[in-house]
Amino acid sequence: MNATELQAAAAAIRSLSMDAIQAANSGHPGLPMGIAELGALLYGEIMQHDPADPGWENRDRFILSAGHGSMLVYSLLHLAGYDLPLEELKNFRQVGSKTPGHPEWGHTVGVETTTGPLGQGMANAVGMAIAESMAAARFNTSEHQIIDHYTYAIVGDGCMMEGVTAEAASLAGHLQLGKLIVFYDDNQISIDGSTEITFTEDVPARFRAYGWHVQSGDAYDADGIRGMIQAAREITDKPSFISLRSIIGKGSPNKAGTAGVHGAALGEQEVAAAKRELGLPEDTQFYIPPVASEFFAQRRNELGIARQEWKKLFADWAAANPALKQEWEAFRSGKPLQDISFPLYSTGDSVATRSAGQKAMQAVAAAYPNLVGGSADLAASNKTKFDGAEEYSSLNHRGSIINYGVREHAMGAVCNGIALYGLFKSFAATFLVFSDYMRPSVRLAALMQIPSIFVYTHDSIFVGEDGPTHQPIEHYAAMRAIPNLHFYRPGDAEETNIAWQMALERPDGPVALSLTRQNLPVYAKQDPDWQENMRRGAYIVQDSKSAPEVIVVATGSEVALALEAADSVKGTAIRVVSMPSRELFLQQSVEYREAVLPPGVRVVVAEAGIAQGWEVLTGGRREDIFSIDRFGVSGPGAAVADALEFSAAHLAARISQKG
Amino acid sequence: MNATELQAAAAAIRSLSMDAIQAANSGHPGLPMGIAELGALLYGEIMQHDPADPGWENRDRFILSAGHGSMLVYSLLHLAGYDLPLEELKNFRQVGSKTPGHPEWGHTVGVETTTGPLGQGMANAVGMAIAESMAAARFNTSEHQIIDHYTYAIVGDGCMMEGVTAEAASLAGHLQLGKLIVFYDDNQISIDGSTEITFTEDVPARFRAYGWHVQSGDAYDADGIRGMIQAAREITDKPSFISLRSIIGKGSPNKAGTAGVHGAALGEQEVAAAKRELGLPEDTQFYIPPVASEFFAQRRNELGIARQEWKKLFADWAAANPALKQEWEAFRSGKPLQDISFPLYSTGDSVATRSAGQKAMQAVAAAYPNLVGGSADLAASNKTKFDGAEEYSSLNHRGSIINYGVREHAMGAVCNGIALYGLFKSFAATFLVFSDYMRPSVRLAALMQIPSIFVYTHDSIFVGEDGPTHQPIEHYAAMRAIPNLHFYRPGDAEETNIAWQMALERPDGPVALSLTRQNLPVYAKQDPDWQENMRRGAYIVQDSKSAPEVIVVATGSEVALALEAADSVKGTAIRVVSMPSRELFLQQSVEYREAVLPPGVRVVVAEAGIAQGWEVLTGGRREDIFSIDRFGVSGPGAAVADALEFSAAHLAARISQKG
Repeated sequence: MNATELQAAAAAIRSLSMDAIQAANSGHPGLPMGIAELGALLYGEIMQHDPADPGWENRDRFILSAGHGSMLVYSLLHLAGYDLPLEELKNFRQVGSKTPGHPEWGHTVGVETTTGPLGQGMANAVGMAIAESMAAARFNTSEHQIIDHYTYAIVGDGCMMEGVTAEAASLAGHLQLGKLIVFYDDNQISIDGSTEITFTEDVPARFRAYGWHVQSGDAYDADGIRGMIQAAREITDKPSFISLRSIIGKGSPNKAGTAGVHGAALGEQEVAAAKRELGLPEDTQFYIPPVASEFFAQRRNELGIARQEWKKLFADWAAANPALKQEWEAFRSGKPLQDISFPLYSTGDSVATRSAGQKAMQAVAAAYPNLVGGSADLAASNKTKFDGAEEYSSLNHRGSIINYGVREHAMGAVCNGIALYGLFKSFAATFLVFSDYMRPSVRLAALMQIPSIFVYTHDSIFVGEDGPTHQPIEHYAAMRAIPNLHFYRPGDAEETNIAWQMALERPDGPVALSLTRQNLPVYAKQDPDWQENMRRGAYIVQDSKSAPEVIVVATGSEVALALEAADSVKGTAIRVVSMPSRELFLQQSVEYREAVLPPGVRVVVAEAGIAQGWEVLTGGRREDIFSIDRFGVSGPGAAVADALEFSAAHLAARISQKG
Repeated sequence: MNATELQAAAAAIRSLSMDAIQAANSGHPGLPMGIAELGALLYGEIMQHDPADPGWENRDRFILSAGHGSMLVYSLLHLAGYDLPLEELKNFRQVGSKTPGHPEWGHTVGVETTTGPLGQGMANAVGMAIAESMAAARFNTSEHQIIDHYTYAIVGDGCMMEGVTAEAASLAGHLQLGKLIVFYDDNQISIDGSTEITFTEDVPARFRAYGWHVQSGDAYDADGIRGMIQAAREITDKPSFISLRSIIGKGSPNKAGTAGVHGAALGEQEVAAAKRELGLPEDTQFYIPPVASEFFAQRRNELGIARQEWKKLFADWAAANPALKQEWEAFRSGKPLQDISFPLYSTGDSVATRSAGQKAMQAVAAAYPNLVGGSADLAASNKTKFDGAEEYSSLNHRGSIINYGVREHAMGAVCNGIALYGLFKSFAATFLVFSDYMRPSVRLAALMQIPSIFVYTHDSIFVGEDGPTHQPIEHYAAMRAIPNLHFYRPGDAEETNIAWQMALERPDGPVALSLTRQNLPVYAKQDPDWQENMRRGAYIVQDSKSAPEVIVVATGSEVALALEAADSVKGTAIRVVSMPSRELFLQQSVEYREAVLPPGVRVVVAEAGIAQGWEVLTGGRREDIFSIDRFGVSGPGAAVADALEFSAAHLAARISQKG
């Protein structure tokens, strides 16, 4: 785009951003106005994309990690010709609009991920760059390169301060993600004022230490930016960090360069003054210079032609590689390539559910070769490596096991980025207690309704000797509290198979699996339809001969405990229910719920965590919840359970207490 | 200490560590064996401490951030003469012992913080170094320096990979914490194998970029370490990072230098082989070379004399500065210097509780000049700056307001470190939704039973336009799930005063305050003892004239909503209860609970978050919980509430439904 076109496009971004934010009287004009030229260059000249096909697999990915600057994205999507009419921009930050305060994936066409919580987008971008390299390695042939694109991100100083960014950047440098290009909007202003008050590190030096290719320049020097992007592309074994010195709110004559322009509308007077300065008509709202409209209209044609060329390349590739094409379709649809042959167990087998998980993953991987992921330096403990699984590395992009390192937070966000990419089943593993370290990313997976799979082992005080810092107590409740997160705590190896299958089949949200470190017996299941009923969240493992007087509902390792306790209580008709997912169970029909838990029958719940939330089954009675409402202690698992009075004998006593 | 003494002390550490871990058949020998010489040097020669007075205010602080290497600490504490008998080391990782799997503050004398979750200790150390500088600035005079000590930490590669470490390190560099000295145990082995598989960044270069003074050396070159510590002390305007190349599990002839020695007992054969290699008697368990015992016995005398000299210095200082001495005593006791004059409000005033919080803090600061803390770049939004509060910076150690930057996780851990230091009331602030970013530190505050105060504003969907990424939904439940965390959601400005007072008075655990962005009416309170009863977690705001038929329990902004709804429902006797803390209320006597919530009366709960947990009050009925069980949407607060059907009219309809 020539200088006139670039200037017009940048003016349009500033115009739309100012007016939308003024109309809402809410929003963040600082970033879109500060970095408008970069946005215009990316969407107008640099990026390979096609507004007519936002799902094009070989598009460049663009992420605004500093999501508060959402009007930059909305302005660009509108200008570029995505399905985002001006009317939506006029309804910025209104209920029901396509222009929420922060960009939301799945809500607005062309938005690649939900950002706002800082640093997440940067780590998502790392995940997308990993996914690109995996897809390229698996599908490209020497003759046809159907996957060959870049991932671009814009980050702000807030992103730079967040630890999740640091983790993701270190990982990206290690993995030598050469097609990741990150622009740092270095405007030296944070919400509380100049970055001088808290952020004085040498950011470029830090990124060089991570192994990145680092360049610095001026946000308003288009040729300089073009040259740096070219240089970034030529370095293929390092991710690129391009630091751009910018002026926050550029174009606002009285507020540019101050914290005041970060997160509030400019005010009508200042908008008018800015329009005068920018040469925009003062009285027209949401004005787009005709040069900008014409430029993007022509650009759309060029982009469409480029995508048609890719479609031809793709067709040639498909014709030449039918097996790869079949795999591609499976990857895209999320369906298995073959049936899964889950491992079989016999009643009485003694298996930790983390080990059952490992066997399940091995079975799954044969049917879903697109299952990729890894652990935060606990692969041997989480049991997330399995026979035949190759490690992904800078030398082997075909590998599926990612060594995430002790970087739980980035792992969660990278896992989301891989899932968002659209071709892979993405998992991430650590101890359940460290789900806290990655919780913001788990929340975003749930909010975005993407099928990330989180594998959490060592899921209770039975972890033992590592002590209270490593023993989950509140984590079941905390996980279940996240809307749209499915949290499954299978009770034995057989249930673990089903839990994995449920995780793979869920299209519209993440699943967290809670698995044990310690061995558990595989128990007999009276219900012949238990596999089907487990998908309803809960089923009857063992029923009483006569109508039950007490129903013991248990999860995970406590199902075996409940069976043992029930057997020891004589003279009471006891039903034992396994409830791997309370939230799923509560969504079932009244008929099913009452078939499992008939009204009027006392329910005792057993779970090695905090009681909170189980009152929904016990009619509000906390005394019928056999729980652990304090932090654990260090000692062998059985000794810890004794110390906390959490044994089958104690549960039996609770069952025998009159309600 | 001479070479013979150092060698004997290091041999003792290896001997005790191997045997304790072998006896438990659980633990992490790699670190204590790898870095034994450094530990011996610190406790035997470098550190200013006195085992006879573990609480000595001017002691050097030592933190093993890589907490899994706990046997290093226990060995050192035992050798140095702290109250940790050999019997406790023999009971390593057993229930009831003083030697849990990871070091626990408050459980073992001489342990300065609870570590294990990686990176936390490093950030705690930053907090302690901040606290030291604050204490020195406030109490030292030109004549008497009663506070003048270092904070030392040992970190591993796991700590280095964690984002919380990156945030804390960037902050420490910015603040020029010259008396913080961190040793990096660079053994190049993580749990999953060589750090080559995931961690290849240039760590020293990264720390230089943060503004640290960086040195590198050999973990077994005692003179080299002495020299680097001396150089670190001489650089007074930069924290020091000393990278030591070590061999994990050094002394184990067949396992040293491998991941196998990280986290499992060596096995009896290998222990025997190691003892042969180290020249230790094979048949003696928990052997301590006499040279080591004699050295530390003599060292204890020297350390005791040094502390006596400090006591004399302190007495001179106290005599010369009675006002400072009075302040010192107040700081140490956690008591106010004067009564707090909380702001007064009138019924009907319209005040956001975040603003009431600001006014309360201003009142508090006059009585508690040791109140220090800050916000993660949201001070203006969190309202945690107030008139007269100076900013803490490298140029002003007397300041009390810390600009934490967008570093929520480090903020939480630094806040804990300041609280652990023992002289300050420490607070940290951000949006409630971002409590997720710092959750691991909140958990540790609760586990340690330390009085960190977390100020969380923007506490519901009424945040509005910023949308679902910024609107808490699950956070009330998630906070309440953490054992020993008090979570207060005051309903108006007057309740906010009391909530702040409760936070300041709590000695044995953290408090999280949940405050609104939006204005709320100050409501009339029928209960003349409401201030006292609020401390019980809940009280009756407005009662019905006749015995209540429905009780509406609400928290925070929903109390006003409940009052409005109750007024609109005609013909039903309704009591409205404000319940700022459900967990406190549930701990009250049956008498009090039944006075507020008489048995048999229908309870409807109103809270702008997930229903989970409120069934304890509604007899299990979810339909009596007026909640928001999905993510929010972007729009003006009132419009969002309408879209989610969360208005007074909707609540009134729910109240009117028959149970």
